[in-house]
This record gives sequence, C-alpha cells and structure tokens, in this order.
Amino acid sequence: MDYIENIGKRAKMASVKLALMLQEDKNNALKSCAKALIDWQDKILEANSEDVNRSRNNQVKEALIDRLLLTHERIKAMSDGLLEVSNLPDPIGEVLSMQVRPNGLVIGEKRVPLGVIGMIYESRPNVTADAFGLCFKTGNAVILRGGSDAIKSNIAIVEALHQGLENAGVSSDAVLLIEDTSRELVNKMMRLDNYIDILIPRGGYGLIRSVKENSSIPVIETGTGNCHIYVDEYADFDMALDIIDNAKTQRLGVCNTCESLVIHDKISEAFIPLLYRRLHEKGIEIRADKKACAISPECIPASEEDYYTEYLDKIISLKVVDSVDEAILHINHYNTKHSDAIITKDYDNAMRFHNEIDAAAVYVNASTRFTDGNEFGFGAEIGISTQKLHARGPMGLKALTTTKYIIFGNGQIRQ
Amino acid sequence: MDYIENIGKRAKMASVKLALMLQEDKNNALKSCAKALIDWQDKILEANSEDVNRSRNNQVKEALIDRLLLTHERIKAMSDGLLEVSNLPDPIGEVLSMQVRPNGLVIGEKRVPLGVIGMIYESRPNVTADAFGLCFKTGNAVILRGGSDAIKSNIAIVEALHQGLENAGVSSDAVLLIEDTSRELVNKMMRLDNYIDILIPRGGYGLIRSVKENSSIPVIETGTGNCHIYVDEYADFDMALDIIDNAKTQRLGVCNTCESLVIHDKISEAFIPLLYRRLHEKGIEIRADKKACAISPECIPASEEDYYTEYLDKIISLKVVDSVDEAILHINHYNTKHSDAIITKDYDNAMRFHNEIDAAAVYVNASTRFTDGNEFGFGAEIGISTQKLHARGPMGLKALTTTKYIIFGNGQIRQ
Repeated sequence: MDYIENIGKRAKMASVKLALMLQEDKNNALKSCAKALIDWQDKILEANSEDVNRSRNNQVKEALIDRLLLTHERIKAMSDGLLEVSNLPDPIGEVLSMQVRPNGLVIGEKRVPLGVIGMIYESRPNVTADAFGLCFKTGNAVILRGGSDAIKSNIAIVEALHQGLENAGVSSDAVLLIEDTSRELVNKMMRLDNYIDILIPRGGYGLIRSVKENSSIPVIETGTGNCHIYVDEYADFDMALDIIDNAKTQRLGVCNTCESLVIHDKISEAFIPLLYRRLHEKGIEIRADKKACAISPECIPASEEDYYTEYLDKIISLKVVDSVDEAILHINHYNTKHSDAIITKDYDNAMRFHNEIDAAAVYVNASTRFTDGNEFGFGAEIGISTQKLHARGPMGLKALTTTKYIIFGNGQIRQ
Repeated sequence: MDYIENIGKRAKMASVKLALMLQEDKNNALKSCAKALIDWQDKILEANSEDVNRSRNNQVKEALIDRLLLTHERIKAMSDGLLEVSNLPDPIGEVLSMQVRPNGLVIGEKRVPLGVIGMIYESRPNVTADAFGLCFKTGNAVILRGGSDAIKSNIAIVEALHQGLENAGVSSDAVLLIEDTSRELVNKMMRLDNYIDILIPRGGYGLIRSVKENSSIPVIETGTGNCHIYVDEYADFDMALDIIDNAKTQRLGVCNTCESLVIHDKISEAFIPLLYRRLHEKGIEIRADKKACAISPECIPASEEDYYTEYLDKIISLKVVDSVDEAILHINHYNTKHSDAIITKDYDNAMRFHNEIDAAAVYVNASTRFTDGNEFGFGAEIGISTQKLHARGPMGLKALTTTKYIIFGNGQIRQ
C-alpha cells in the first residue's frame, strides 16, 4: 500500500473511534494537547527557525515570513485556542428533530461527525493546531497537508499534538500530517475519496481553484472576498465614512475587507470629496470611474479589471451608479459571494439589498469586517465558505458535522 | 457564445427572478404547468411512442422500455405531482435563527434558493416534470439533461411546461432542456460552474461515478443502496421474517431494497431454515457463506463480490457473524451508506447499531424500504443522498435551498 493510502486508511480507522468518544474524554485530550504545545515550544521554535531561515535564503518577502514565523506568544495563542475549543459546546449527538409517523415509526435526525477531513493549506503553521482542534472536537480525524515552507514547523507541532493525544490515551492517528509536500502527492490526496469525506482548502485563489478542479472528494470552497459597500442616496454620511474606513483599513489582508465602493449618483458630488479625504489620510488609493474622477480628480481611473480585484492592499475601487437596481446588478456581477453592505436610511432599499444580493453575508449599516466565526458567536472558525452547498459564510463546529436518520420501529413494514 | 453556455446564462438570469417570486405566484404557475401537461398529453404520447419504437428497434429490454413508456395515467400522475408540490409549504424565506450580538448587530440565517440546478438522468421521462416542480417551488432554475432514449418525450414535456409557465406570466427559462444528448455536451455541462450551482445525477452507478469524477460543479450523489438487515441473537423471528420479506420483495429494483442479510451465529441453526423457506416461496435466491450453506444446503455459495453487490434482482446475500461487533464491522465495510437495519429486542445492541453504523438511515426493527421522502413526511423527493455533505438521506425541498446571513446594523464597526 502506498504512503498516502496508508495515511487515509489509518485516519479512517481512527475516525471510527473518535466518533464514539465521550465529550469529556475529547475535552481532556484537547487540554492535554494544549499543554503539550507549551511543553514542546522550544522544539517547535527550533524547527520554525529552520523554516524561516530557508525562506529568508530564498528571498521570500517579509510579509510572508511574518505569516510563517512562530514566537512564544504565538505558540501560547495556539495552545489557548485548543483550550477554548475544549470549552465550546459539543454539537455531536444533538438530535435536530424527531417525529412520529402515522404508522408509529419514530424518525430522528442526529448530528454526527463527517469522518475524515482533509485540510490543504499554505504557509501559516498555526492552522495545523487550529484545524486539528476543531476537527477533533467534532469527532473527526484530520489529514493535514501544509505548505512546504512550513514543513519543519508543522512536523514539530504535530509531534507535540501526538504526545498530547498519547498522554490522554487517544490514538495519535486522529491527526496525520503529510510530510511529503510534493505536488504529485497532493494530487493523489485529492483522489482519496475512499478515505477522505471532505476536503477544505485554505489559501489563495490558485490553491482553491486547483483543489476544486482536481478533487474527486467533495470540497468546501473558502474564501476570496471581493466585498462591496454601497452608499445609497439615503445614507448617513458620517456612518458611511466610519464604516468604509473600518471595512477597508482595520485589516488590509483578510477576506472580509472591503475592496470596492458603489456610490449613488445623487450624493456623489457631496460625498466623494469627503470620502477621498478620509481614505487619503489612511493612505488608501481610490481607483474610480469617470464620474468619480471628474468630482475628485485625485482618484486614479479604474480599469474593468479593477472591479474584479481583491486587492488585499491599500487600494479600493469605486463606481458611481444611478439607482439601487444598478448597484445590485453591479455587485452581483463583480462580487465573490462573500460579504456586501448597504448604507442607507431607506427601508425599501435596505430590504431589497438583503433580498437581492447574492452573498454569504449581506449587511445593512454595518462593516463587512464582521463576517467571522467569532464575531458571529460561533466561538471558533475553520474558514469562511463562499459556496452554497453544506455551509455558507463563517464555518463553526457545526460545519464539520453531518446528520444521519435514526429510526425506531417495532416491526413496521412498508405497504 | 456556444449552445451550452447560452443555456447556462439564460438559466442564471431566470434564477434571479425566480428567487424573488411570491409563493402564490409560484404555486399558480405550478398549477398552470399541471394543466398544460394534461392539455398536451396527446403530443407527449406521440413523441413518447417515437422514443419507444426507436428503443424497440434497438432491441432494448422490456423492463427498460417500461421505464420509458408514458400512458395517460402516467401523464396524469406527473400532473398531479406538480399539484401536490404546489400545495407543500414553501421553505424559501424562512429565518432559521436570529440572534443579537453584544454590539447590537442582529444576525439572521435565512433560507434562499441555490440558484441554478443541473439534473443529469437516464431514461425515465417523468423525472423531467418532477425535477422541474421541486426546483421551481424552491425558486431555482433547472437545466435538464435526460437520456437520449427519452429525448422526444422530454422535448414534448418541456414544451408543455413552457406553455404552462407562459400562461402564468413566468419566463420559460425557468426550465431548460439540453436537446443535444451527446457525451461532449454533457462533459461541457459538468464544467459550467459559472452558471450551475449544483449538479444532481440520477441513475446507475456508472452515471453517478462519471459525474462525480468529471464535474467542477458541486455534486450531490444519489443513491446506490447495498442495504443490510442484521438479525441479532435477540431478534423476534416472526418480526425478522416479515421485515426481511418486505425489505427484499416489496419492490426489487429500488435503492432502499435489502440486498444483504447478516445473521448472528447463535440463532443461525434455528433461523436460517425458516428464512430459506420464506424467501424461497417468493423466488429469492440466497447466496450465503459456508456456515449458512451447511445449515441450509439449498443456499448458493457466496463470493466476496456478492457482498458488494446491489442486485436489484431476486437474489440476496447472507453472512453469519459471531457478535454484534462483527456485524457492525461487516456492514460498515460493505454497505453503500444508504440504509441498514437491526432486528433485536436487546437495548444495548439497538443503541450500538444506531450509534456505530455509518449510513444515511439506520433502523431498529423496521424495513429499510421506508427510506423515502414521502415515507419520511417530506411530501416530495428529488433523490436520496448517500453522501455526507449538504444533504443526507431522502432529499425534500429543503435540500434544494441554501442559507445566507442577513445582518441588521446601525453603524457598527469592528474594534
């Protein structure tokens, strides 16, 4: 049996036992793993510095090195993350509904683990511990395939987790790391549908597209976010400026950051100069259509490409529209179905926006930055789904479960 | 723009309007389509006889011709099906939860249509009307790709549906049929992820496997069913015989039919001869392991392959086991995650079976034949999902929906 099939088989076997574990045993094991991460922190940091040095030698940009870098504080945060997950309510075993049919059959719908979850991700090594915590809490085994630049760090983190699991008397096959980060092997992993129940890619557009195209395992797409804010003709200007400022500048490099503005023509002359001043102060460049550039000539003319772009940078696109209809059409055309907001005092326009925008999260008078598992009160998040099947928007523990029907009979046969 | 992309685009545009239709307008349109099927029945029957004659000339088996054949009664049943769907409660717009966050943000989770649904199916032309009804009721546009043997029938049925939609003032792009049934075109359809949100294949294993392997659109796998009944050492024999008889013989060619029996060794000598007599009376052949063949020498020796087989025929496989553990291991190995049952009077064994069998529907003391949208009280069914993502088990209207978060703010920004 080859390397990857062996990993699949071991994970599948582990998942059978994980699905039946008591909540208190799972929580104790998570606490044990949290402790192990602290106990092993020197080894983890040593491995991490190998990864960082290798990346530095390869002239990797500092921003990417920062993603890769671990510190005592960051390991503490990973450990605290596992403790937090151990304190969350366990969704497994919940019966969502139970009904009695006319013939006396009792049919219940029970929440159960998915089985084996595959994670394919890029450089951030904290994903290794975070993903394990959420999958384990929900009774799933997880197969991790991180990026080659973080491989030494990931190996050390998984060794710590294995020690934590063993100390708690749990099979270390609950979390398995693919140590061979070749493309050939990840392609094999994506065809392992006998063993892996669902694949979650986390990373840039290229990674997610490649997984979606090549996987025979069901994939949950997580997200690129070309998020819009539409400033309606009935907007409160101060609120609009505060929300845009927050949604664009509070954190530049994340998927719920606002990347494009849509402004109603009736307020464009009054609003755009205020907007320009506010964003210019924060060093944000505006790429705008002709109308907006005529009003604020400091804006840079936007190309068609700009409206499709998730900048993750100090740039925002801007489009002036004649109506709420045009705003909705524009946003539904260019958005990535992630998060979009309207700023308005008008009831009808607010309701139309809620009803007609096709996105995981649709806001009235609030910042798109709230699309997040913690902000939504889920306590944790494995990613933000921008697809429509299974889970949409921030995915908490429930997104890592499925259901099965449990039927209680006393001899019923079908007529 | 090529043929299939044009179809995708038209469906997408239609879906935007369908998503916003009032319930009463959707129900009226369904009634109008039900009437149109009756009005057009002569044309439909004429087209169907062309299909049937072509299949007869091609020496197609009578059983398959029966699937293809339409009659006045069958068209009436299709029409009645649309009326029934018009009377079901509409799941669209339901808010599943709404919470207030500490900062005052109100976050609701609202049920919305998926958008555009692609159906790929084989010879039965009634699927054409049934699938349209369920997709339309849930505010989705549907692209249908039926088998080439039923193409004339499908064209006539869709023409009738278009007439019904037009009479109700609804765009006929709500249901689009792919009239070119070449393999090349279906392959293109499976890559149309810009326009189609979900693909549902209905048919044999080969079709479903091919769609799963080749589609870049999320797929809901529907079902092959290698369903098991385990007769525990604490079973009531009469109940076990009645349930097995029902689950195997009530209908041979459907996915929730029992295809394999697992018998506890302690009762094998007493039970297997009774079982043999009961099934022999119904013309069912038993393919059994050595132990069972020693007890009832009329049984045919089973091969390993038999335990994997969904016969859809007058054959059933049988295995004797030493314990409930072995029964669970055996079933989880050979089942297709569809429906499995235990017959027992023992509380612990019943609970273990419910907890440990990995299937969409797990029964205690009832026939597997109940795994069905109507029997589960859903009022209708688009198929039975044997996968774990999005929908598991019989899929009613809710399986054709997704959710989106609607957020009501009054100026909230993220700290």
